[in-house]
Amino acid sequence: MAAAMKALVKPAGEPGFVLADVPIPAIGPTDVLIRVEKAGICGTDQHIYAWDNWAQARVKPPLIVGHEFMGRVAAVGDAVRSVKVGERVSAEGHIADLTCLLCRTGQAHLCERVEIIGVDRDGAFAEYIAVPEYNVWRLDPAIPDEYAAIFDPLGNAVHTVMAAGVSIKSVVITGVGSIGLMAIPVARAAGAASVYAIDVNPAKLALATHLGADATFLATQSGLVDEIKARTNGDGVDVLLEMSGSAAAIDLGLQMVRNGGTAALLGIPGDSINLNLAERIIFKGLTVLGINGRRMFETWYQTQALVKSGRIDLSSIITHVLPYTQFDRAFELMRKGEAAKIVLDFKGESGSS
Amino acid sequence: MAAAMKALVKPAGEPGFVLADVPIPAIGPTDVLIRVEKAGICGTDQHIYAWDNWAQARVKPPLIVGHEFMGRVAAVGDAVRSVKVGERVSAEGHIADLTCLLCRTGQAHLCERVEIIGVDRDGAFAEYIAVPEYNVWRLDPAIPDEYAAIFDPLGNAVHTVMAAGVSIKSVVITGVGSIGLMAIPVARAAGAASVYAIDVNPAKLALATHLGADATFLATQSGLVDEIKARTNGDGVDVLLEMSGSAAAIDLGLQMVRNGGTAALLGIPGDSINLNLAERIIFKGLTVLGINGRRMFETWYQTQALVKSGRIDLSSIITHVLPYTQFDRAFELMRKGEAAKIVLDFKGESGSS
Amino acid sequence: MAAAMKALVKPAGEPGFVLADVPIPAIGPTDVLIRVEKAGICGTDQHIYAWDNWAQARVKPPLIVGHEFMGRVAAVGDAVRSVKVGERVSAEGHIADLTCLLCRTGQAHLCERVEIIGVDRDGAFAEYIAVPEYNVWRLDPAIPDEYAAIFDPLGNAVHTVMAAGVSIKSVVITGVGSIGLMAIPVARAAGAASVYAIDVNPAKLALATHLGADATFLATQSGLVDEIKARTNGDGVDVLLEMSGSAAAIDLGLQMVRNGGTAALLGIPGDSINLNLAERIIFKGLTVLGINGRRMFETWYQTQALVKSGRIDLSSIITHVLPYTQFDRAFELMRKGEAAKIVLDFKGESGSS
Amino acid sequence: MAAAMKALVKPAGEPGFVLADVPIPAIGPTDVLIRVEKAGICGTDQHIYAWDNWAQARVKPPLIVGHEFMGRVAAVGDAVRSVKVGERVSAEGHIADLTCLLCRTGQAHLCERVEIIGVDRDGAFAEYIAVPEYNVWRLDPAIPDEYAAIFDPLGNAVHTVMAAGVSIKSVVITGVGSIGLMAIPVARAAGAASVYAIDVNPAKLALATHLGADATFLATQSGLVDEIKARTNGDGVDVLLEMSGSAAAIDLGLQMVRNGGTAALLGIPGDSINLNLAERIIFKGLTVLGINGRRMFETWYQTQALVKSGRIDLSSIITHVLPYTQFDRAFELMRKGEAAKIVLDFKGESGSS
Repeated sequence: MAAAMKALVKPAGEPGFVLADVPIPAIGPTDVLIRVEKAGICGTDQHIYAWDNWAQARVKPPLIVGHEFMGRVAAVGDAVRSVKVGERVSAEGHIADLTCLLCRTGQAHLCERVEIIGVDRDGAFAEYIAVPEYNVWRLDPAIPDEYAAIFDPLGNAVHTVMAAGVSIKSVVITGVGSIGLMAIPVARAAGAASVYAIDVNPAKLALATHLGADATFLATQSGLVDEIKARTNGDGVDVLLEMSGSAAAIDLGLQMVRNGGTAALLGIPGDSINLNLAERIIFKGLTVLGINGRRMFETWYQTQALVKSGRIDLSSIITHVLPYTQFDRAFELMRKGEAAKIVLDFKGESGSS
Repeated sequence: MAAAMKALVKPAGEPGFVLADVPIPAIGPTDVLIRVEKAGICGTDQHIYAWDNWAQARVKPPLIVGHEFMGRVAAVGDAVRSVKVGERVSAEGHIADLTCLLCRTGQAHLCERVEIIGVDRDGAFAEYIAVPEYNVWRLDPAIPDEYAAIFDPLGNAVHTVMAAGVSIKSVVITGVGSIGLMAIPVARAAGAASVYAIDVNPAKLALATHLGADATFLATQSGLVDEIKARTNGDGVDVLLEMSGSAAAIDLGLQMVRNGGTAALLGIPGDSINLNLAERIIFKGLTVLGINGRRMFETWYQTQALVKSGRIDLSSIITHVLPYTQFDRAFELMRKGEAAKIVLDFKGESGSS
Repeated sequence: MAAAMKALVKPAGEPGFVLADVPIPAIGPTDVLIRVEKAGICGTDQHIYAWDNWAQARVKPPLIVGHEFMGRVAAVGDAVRSVKVGERVSAEGHIADLTCLLCRTGQAHLCERVEIIGVDRDGAFAEYIAVPEYNVWRLDPAIPDEYAAIFDPLGNAVHTVMAAGVSIKSVVITGVGSIGLMAIPVARAAGAASVYAIDVNPAKLALATHLGADATFLATQSGLVDEIKARTNGDGVDVLLEMSGSAAAIDLGLQMVRNGGTAALLGIPGDSINLNLAERIIFKGLTVLGINGRRMFETWYQTQALVKSGRIDLSSIITHVLPYTQFDRAFELMRKGEAAKIVLDFKGESGSS
Repeated sequence: MAAAMKALVKPAGEPGFVLADVPIPAIGPTDVLIRVEKAGICGTDQHIYAWDNWAQARVKPPLIVGHEFMGRVAAVGDAVRSVKVGERVSAEGHIADLTCLLCRTGQAHLCERVEIIGVDRDGAFAEYIAVPEYNVWRLDPAIPDEYAAIFDPLGNAVHTVMAAGVSIKSVVITGVGSIGLMAIPVARAAGAASVYAIDVNPAKLALATHLGADATFLATQSGLVDEIKARTNGDGVDVLLEMSGSAAAIDLGLQMVRNGGTAALLGIPGDSINLNLAERIIFKGLTVLGINGRRMFETWYQTQALVKSGRIDLSSIITHVLPYTQFDRAFELMRKGEAAKIVLDFKGESGSS
């Protein structure tokens, strides 16, 4: 194994990444070294690339970025038992402490001391990454590389859909960015009786229709709450999947949920929002679920089962697969809204391993 | 049966009630006429008495007020089968339409077309009240009259506690007005491992301690989140029962809940509030439950079981039982904070039936 | 309205039914009289027709049989508010007392004092039937008559599937009689990731495949537990839907469920069975659900949503629609296994109303 | 550390144990060596001591027995991070593989490849035991040694109670051996509204009353189902906790549960039993839960919370604390029914560490 590798690095507190030669990560007795083959670009990566307020407050350069990926096991620590060199894997990017109440009771995705790869510690936009054995997910041969590379955001969609519960239910999705779009076929495959999508972007709504939404609506359309109620016997939908983080969308979406319904909130508002708790949640008897990450590893099993069942087709969402050396072009495409999900190839372009 | 009865009436849009002679309510084929014996005064009644903004927006005088009560069946409609003249009863005060999705699926407490007695239609501060057979609750002989008269607010406490689930869990209650106070022995009897109470009023906190709180705290105390975490292995409580409606208490309470925990919101903020959804709910993976009324009739059965088990003692909360003719004194005592729960007696003072 | 009507009657304790002229049922203030248009034949009806041991122990002739039906409201009692003459309706055939703990807590389908139409009281194989207002289900215009006529058994399938929970889960169905067959498209539409069907009848397995089963197996095939485990990563299925009532199938099905999985039991064994509780249920940590009837009215709403979503096609299960006068032929077809579900037409053949 | 230690060993396939000098267990990088201080004797140990049919089929001598214990960490493997030498600990005795579906989804207690210490691999009746870091439970200082030594069976009781859910519910416990006895104060502390205990042994029923049962009954008493129904408004109990494994008790207990109720089965029948599934489970719409072991580590947290809350007192159940050298006397006391729970002391008697 070479002593150095290529990686996309945030070198200092300023916009952009650099392609750099850095040491291959060392591994401890319970760690696994993975040769990255493909990695997805997430909105979080865009924030770090652009070095916006959130990134400045959270990220401490220098840092290797990226957290959605798949590859093959290159080396394992002495105490590793469950995975072997050469196996095709992805990994959960939330590194939990595994010792707290939450980790010890099946809720490691909510560990208070979690570190996220590519955000809090070195990430996956590199030829190699080291993660704890616990985090490694062995890939079923039936999962294509591109899907495997984006199990992380697909898992966000699956976790949100499954936490809310959509079986024979009516569903509104507010915000169809890449995770919101994924949530459409996921919700249909998970048994939703009807799926409505709302966004400010007509192009995304067209893609939402392509992915199986029963109807789509511009968020700016007037009378939208009445429109949704008219389609649901006057009651409102059973389930809201909020994936925009927009205060207006949250307020609108909550109005669309029937009394006694469920709202799963995945979108992250940038700031505090003004909310009429009494009218939107309390009198309606809503169940509101904060959604974070993916369950370890219920969500991974569910995501695998969905992909293997052949019931979700994400090919229209993965708009580009590019060599990792073209990362600046990739972020430019995303900035311009000319791409949905871009996957970087760290294997085809590299001759180093 | 007399053709007229005494009742406490809101005659017009101005503060105060009047004691008036009004017709005894007529009953339809599925209605039950109840001779009221005891009735509790609720915060809602205070709002209507004072004729504040909320009352002006909601209530249409003239109206007989009051919604917490017990009494005996005086007459039944031709189609009534489940209850007989002379039976000792209370009644659910939310008159649901019984035909909508919610009513037909066990969630009548969330019916969109609900009418509340004493708020939207004539209420219980009278010698007689008519309610649908569906709403009548036959009282177990083991339930004392005073407890039976306040099954409505006690039911709010039980519903909140049971919706959240407290069995072997740590619990914070923010706001110990009469329902918050009731929630303390209810939570203990329902299996809470620990109960902490927070309020701005030291006298109520003293009562909270008397009722079984493990520790109580002034809401103004600094470092309160750390204090609660220190008492819960550093994690925070499993459950928040929010019973104040205060924006500050809601924000404080949500900080005290551990990741993955549950917050049940019963208190009604007077207006929209500013809330950091990301930090308080989403990243924490909280389950937030809007709580409204009482389940028909799970909550009534649970309340009955609790009282019959002898595990809750509300004698310190029912501070006064007064003849209904002293209603002005009762509202004065409540306004001054010199009473917790006042029960009006509509039987002892009256010779009319 | 005519004073007499045609009905299929069990006149006495012997095999067969007779077509008789009987009085149109009287209605009380809270009852609804329905002009029956179409009615499904159930296995229960076959038992009563054949007058087997179960029928002899349960049924008290004379009795109008039949419990699956749809029609139009012909008259309503004085206190009926939610339904009008002329409306197109079906009805829940379990007449619950509506006053007990179960009825008052959303579990009326488990009422201890339930009476079933066509079994314990006069049923639906007639021109008219009277049922309580509570039991009437107003039909959505999008529901075809034939589907509406079999909402009862379709509801059994939906209730079983939804009680077990199949969203993104692997499912085995043991026993694909008409309800087991219906459960296949229901499970798929409700989000099952995979559905396997087992039966002793190859023809039914062929129909199961047609209805969407991923794989089907003869119950007599050796190594079936290993076969199912091989298709589920070695774990076994997440969910068993037991719809045969066969002791052998119950034992086989329980072996196929993974540890921690769920088994929903709808099939009724004719007698006590021998069961290895320790190996089949306790050590495995299974959740076993007894399934009875349909939830009032969650199941009806779910069934309606499924049919309206266009995701289930039962046309291959409804093999015959016959005039009711041909009831003897219908029972003969069922006895010979030459029909799956037969619907009797009580409207087209009749000139009496 | 000494190279040899004292241990209670099953040397060969015959009744009894021997006190032997054996090597101190070696530890791997993720293992923890614990100096045992106190250990509880379980019914399983009695089976192995007596060398009955079950033991002969399951246990492969030579084997160090025992699985309930507490002690202090004596050494840790190189990769161990969460626990330090000298810490006071207990341990979950089910050694799961941590790599399967169940282990990866919060159900490690149901791992198909579990090994149980003292049954499948060397156990805790010794001066030292080695267990994986994952299994170690760090003890809160507030937990007394004797309680800590029996967290395993106490955890069985807690897991059964919490899986069933008893908050404001009526509960019957069939079988009050040591776990059934523990379940009484556990159920009360977890919020049960009423607890009834049934057994064939009057002495145990007396202890059940002492521990908080509302009423106790000899299993042989006639009319017992009616008796329980009379105490529960005619409905039957909400919850059955079956802790006897007796076919007769299972049948009796299931009859006592109300329609729609829950039965949690912990007791292990020695063989297949005859069960009327239709009458006892299916028509009643019961939820039946197979209970195995304890949840890792929800149950351990719950058990800790219960003991710390001061709401359970097990002093009357722990009838003896004996030096481990008196093991033959201990098993004799248990065989004669003269002891409930016996704790062996491995520290006080030993001078070797």
